[in-house]
Amino acid sequence: MVSALKVDDYIFNLLEDRKPVVLYEASRHLFHAGGKRLRPYLVLKSCELVDGNPHLALPFAAGLEILHNFTLIHDDIMDKDSFRRGNPTIHSKWGVPMAIASGDLLFAKVYQAMYAPYFDGSLPSESVLKSIKAVTDATISICEGQVLDISFPDTRDVSPEDYILMVGGKTSALFSACAKIGAIVGGANRREVKMLASFAWDAGIAFQIVDDILGVTANDTTLGKPIGSDLREGKKTLIMVYALKNTASREKENLLRVLGDQNADSQDIDAAIEILRSSGAINYAKKKAAEYVKSSKESLKVFPDIQARQDLLELVDYFSSRDY
Amino acid sequence: MVSALKVDDYIFNLLEDRKPVVLYEASRHLFHAGGKRLRPYLVLKSCELVDGNPHLALPFAAGLEILHNFTLIHDDIMDKDSFRRGNPTIHSKWGVPMAIASGDLLFAKVYQAMYAPYFDGSLPSESVLKSIKAVTDATISICEGQVLDISFPDTRDVSPEDYILMVGGKTSALFSACAKIGAIVGGANRREVKMLASFAWDAGIAFQIVDDILGVTANDTTLGKPIGSDLREGKKTLIMVYALKNTASREKENLLRVLGDQNADSQDIDAAIEILRSSGAINYAKKKAAEYVKSSKESLKVFPDIQARQDLLELVDYFSSRDY
Repeated sequence: MVSALKVDDYIFNLLEDRKPVVLYEASRHLFHAGGKRLRPYLVLKSCELVDGNPHLALPFAAGLEILHNFTLIHDDIMDKDSFRRGNPTIHSKWGVPMAIASGDLLFAKVYQAMYAPYFDGSLPSESVLKSIKAVTDATISICEGQVLDISFPDTRDVSPEDYILMVGGKTSALFSACAKIGAIVGGANRREVKMLASFAWDAGIAFQIVDDILGVTANDTTLGKPIGSDLREGKKTLIMVYALKNTASREKENLLRVLGDQNADSQDIDAAIEILRSSGAINYAKKKAAEYVKSSKESLKVFPDIQARQDLLELVDYFSSRDY
Repeated sequence: MVSALKVDDYIFNLLEDRKPVVLYEASRHLFHAGGKRLRPYLVLKSCELVDGNPHLALPFAAGLEILHNFTLIHDDIMDKDSFRRGNPTIHSKWGVPMAIASGDLLFAKVYQAMYAPYFDGSLPSESVLKSIKAVTDATISICEGQVLDISFPDTRDVSPEDYILMVGGKTSALFSACAKIGAIVGGANRREVKMLASFAWDAGIAFQIVDDILGVTANDTTLGKPIGSDLREGKKTLIMVYALKNTASREKENLLRVLGDQNADSQDIDAAIEILRSSGAINYAKKKAAEYVKSSKESLKVFPDIQARQDLLELVDYFSSRDY
């Protein structure tokens, strides 16, 4: 197995100081602040599952983690979030222009990581170009998902289907690209690539629903940001979408009063969360997450029962049981 | 010759509506507002100069214009510019989040344009991957140049060398990538690629210096933004760098008073421009631009005297004589 440490080494090498130093410092910031490195793990394990050499997948594992961090930096600007993983976000530490530029730099660095295996002769051009296509198409979906997400607060009726479309773009597209690229680099056939992509797609939806649940049930410290941020930002999470459809008009009014109110205090937030709970919305979201977990696992049935499959199954279990 | 119209067709096809429609509308906005399409021209003419088929270079010509527009959208947010080509900028029309997302989308679309010729079989993988490398490396230089540019207002002593480093990143890196990619796609040998890259690099520096000159000598209408924007934003253009070193202390003080003052009125701006003129800074910049034009043209001497060479030489002449 290629360790997470190797992935980080690759990332920090790629982001070594050049002029202007402050740009590279800002670009490395989030990687110092932890993070679960789920996407590299998906790349490497998918590669192992199809009996590929995970060392060859290392640049892609690093590239996809860099892509994820680029989207986080730009999302934090759009969402006006001051903290991420308990640390100040790039734009709150260095200002919006530096945050935009360091996100852009990271996006370019994704491709620098990905073209390298062609030029150093470690992979054939076809694998590299297919991976570049997968990453590019995923990024387009991410942009679409992010714009859906920021437009939801001003959209009156967001359906559960709209929510799934948004999460598909924001989270699953990248998860799916990770698994697909791990498989491509590992030499998988078309069916294997498809099943791994489908596995990761469903896992991504489950992951995001759990994220929404934690946003109203975890505590500030484990979450790394204030509880109820989603509420204050007016986010239409699956929980909120369900609750707005399934509560009495008075409770709905109370929810809408807090939703998107940047100045809501902790009492307002607690009251809103209580409505979400009593409406059954949190349980509904938990049930939905479990369904996606199940469907995700089923896609792995076509693969032999080796350690990598076990690891991927455990990853999905972790998605549905994590508390941060 | 492939017409500019074909380039625009390719761009608008690539940016056809998908959900969410507003994202695609915002992403197309700048392309409707005109623009000189210099970068596609450079790609196509470089391809012709090495006896390549410019039709094969079309996706790259479109991709590099898209890349340019992505950087403009993000730069406009960083520089807080409300107008571009006489039209409202994306962030002033749709807000900063949409402008960030549509810039990101365009960046991804660059790669979608560039991987296409591999998957449709029109170009070998090597040309495509070399082009992807050139575009990626140029984008990294653009990010570096942009951060240098935004850090100059707070940097006490900016030398002419610092200025050239910044412009190299902001403008020449992309010009150079255009010429390089046109040559690669056209089947050029290494020396031809190198000379075309060098031609476009010097042309890019000249272009940017002329841009700085026009920023204090053109009029609002032809420029598409208010005269003196660079002064109000505190930009250290080559003109400013020279003037700050070569004026009496009293005039220097007057310049520094206006430099970076967002509220400077037109009288302040006129007075500052008069100092720039009398210090010889504008003439100095014109002389420098002419030097880069000369050096740029010299790189083309190795090529046969065909129409494409004539066109590229005229392009550089236009750079140094344009009035908008």
